Amino acid sequence: MNDSNIVWHDHHVSKSERSEQKNQKACVLWFTGLSGSGKSTIANALESKLYEMGKHTYLLDGDNVRHGLNKDLGFSDQDRIENIRRIGEVSKLFVEAGLITVTAFISPFRSDRKIVRDLVESGEFIEVFIDTPLEICEQRDPKGLYQKARKGEIPTFTGISSPYEHPVSPDIHIQTAHHSVEESVSSIIEYLSQKGYLDASTH
Amino acid sequence: MNDSNIVWHDHHVSKSERSEQKNQKACVLWFTGLSGSGKSTIANALESKLYEMGKHTYLLDGDNVRHGLNKDLGFSDQDRIENIRRIGEVSKLFVEAGLITVTAFISPFRSDRKIVRDLVESGEFIEVFIDTPLEICEQRDPKGLYQKARKGEIPTFTGISSPYEHPVSPDIHIQTAHHSVEESVSSIIEYLSQKGYLDASTH
Repeated sequence: MNDSNIVWHDHHVSKSERSEQKNQKACVLWFTGLSGSGKSTIANALESKLYEMGKHTYLLDGDNVRHGLNKDLGFSDQDRIENIRRIGEVSKLFVEAGLITVTAFISPFRSDRKIVRDLVESGEFIEVFIDTPLEICEQRDPKGLYQKARKGEIPTFTGISSPYEHPVSPDIHIQTAHHSVEESVSSIIEYLSQKGYLDASTH
Repeated sequence: MNDSNIVWHDHHVSKSERSEQKNQKACVLWFTGLSGSGKSTIANALESKLYEMGKHTYLLDGDNVRHGLNKDLGFSDQDRIENIRRIGEVSKLFVEAGLITVTAFISPFRSDRKIVRDLVESGEFIEVFIDTPLEICEQRDPKGLYQKARKGEIPTFTGISSPYEHPVSPDIHIQTAHHSVEESVSSIIEYLSQKGYLDASTH
């Protein structure tokens, strides 16, 4: 029955309501670092730990973005910028959804990371530098990419034929040569806890 | 300390774990209908109701997508297809995050809606047809768009100069000429409840 006398209050569920419902403060933990630096490993371990703690998270990485949303993009400079732009915009949506969002992409350029930082509100962007020396990354070479890059089979490869601009003042600095995955996760959790992200009531 | 003897179990938080944590089954409620049909109003009211029920949702609509992720897209046929493709891919990510995801876009073409349905798993895509006669939409004309379209100021406008392909067998069919917003929301909630989306333990 169409009763036009009913006044429907046009309520939108707010970002803070979505965060509070999950007893946390939404943010994006933006991991940056060389290929093979350990971004995905630490990001997955962090997510598992946060899940155990009852926190609501989501991880954006090459696995779920490259073959889906960004499958139309290649590796030209323009496409790499567009790749990060879209990931930034999607991260913003996940933050609005109230989730602790983790992203694991090389994201080598300061300007691109700044674009994402500026997309979200102050305090919502947490830059996590996964700092592993190039020699170690190349030694690990989990996907055999460095070997290919050295042979010239990958024309632009970060750290070899394309620059990696390390963060000047990352919010969290993880040196994997000196810390295990477990220690790295603990230090990120401690940061989140101290800054009040793991409890909706703290400010 | 880098103790390479520590074996770190590489655990990924799964889609079902994310859903179960929220005591629900993730899905995408894909609203389709003419401009002015009531998609956004009903979608927001539905979200508010689900939020009151303690459910974890997110709404993708023009407000948060057009000026962000899809701000590079215009209204050519190609761009409209890309618009829906990206929204579909992002919906898929939100479903993987365990959320009951609601989208409110005209999405006039069956082929585009089918692409999205095929992106997600069986049972995760729920097509919601917001069925409002063109005459009523045009009479409401909340944004003055029909008036502009009739004057020829909008070259391709769904229902006027571009077709709307109504769903052949929508999962949920809402006829707004006969039902209030509140009734519409109730019928969607009933569908979700009966099909087990509001309880992680039902199958």
